[in-house]
Amino acid sequence: MRAGELAEQYPLVDLDSDALEAVRILARDRLPGLVVTERGRPHSVLAGSQVVRFVVPDYVQADPSLARVVDESAADRIAATLRGRTVRELLPAKPTRLPSVEVDDTVLELAALMARERTPIVAVVRAGEIVGVVTASRLLELVTGVE
Amino acid sequence: MRAGELAEQYPLVDLDSDALEAVRILARDRLPGLVVTERGRPHSVLAGSQVVRFVVPDYVQADPSLARVVDESAADRIAATLRGRTVRELLPAKPTRLPSVEVDDTVLELAALMARERTPIVAVVRAGEIVGVVTASRLLELVTGVE
Repeated sequence: MRAGELAEQYPLVDLDSDALEAVRILARDRLPGLVVTERGRPHSVLAGSQVVRFVVPDYVQADPSLARVVDESAADRIAATLRGRTVRELLPAKPTRLPSVEVDDTVLELAALMARERTPIVAVVRAGEIVGVVTASRLLELVTGVE
Repeated sequence: MRAGELAEQYPLVDLDSDALEAVRILARDRLPGLVVTERGRPHSVLAGSQVVRFVVPDYVQADPSLARVVDESAADRIAATLRGRTVRELLPAKPTRLPSVEVDDTVLELAALMARERTPIVAVVRAGEIVGVVTASRLLELVTGVE
């Protein structure tokens, strides 16, 4: 089986997309992460926990017990930290590379790449442009015969 | 808001659960990972990509181009590697710890813990037993006002 046959549609966000809108997509569709593109080409994967890192103040991360004394309007301020930002600003200093395979590569090549790069998502590309993605759960659906 | 109010039900698998059944649950529900318990208590998170690492032979991970020459019945053999195993055997040598908060802890404490531990899932416990979990996407749903 070829990677192109297993690929599914997935919301793509660009480096210059609005950060708050992108995070809303991740939340609404309960995605494991955002697939970030740069002019249609694979750029990076932004995991939900990386977004949480971005929005939780550093001093609270360093000492979670401080969170107890921060007032409860925190959610409003957290949303505010995303407003007016771009996806590019959400990415960590060393973004997680989004690995990709060609549509004609085999599913086993895709699985080997996912295993080696330890990413939950692999992009499937044709002529450099993303035509879909394969998540770890989709791949495991195939091999465990859930379908 | 308290962690207990945000917690959702999530399939739990025990260290001694059947590996193939556990992976089928992960695939069927398109989960970001499995929440592994030890006699009802939080033990670890097993990401989908970690399961893929388990099932893809080491020599193929080391050189994905080898996957091209492996025959296409690989899926059958991959499922076979899971049959008769337990979840305990699927876990990597250093499992990813499943962090937990108490039901009465604040949501901001939970967010700080998720950010610091870089996990996509935090368990919510009462008297040491899991009553639900909060995923990164669920947390971001709250703070971005998708609901």
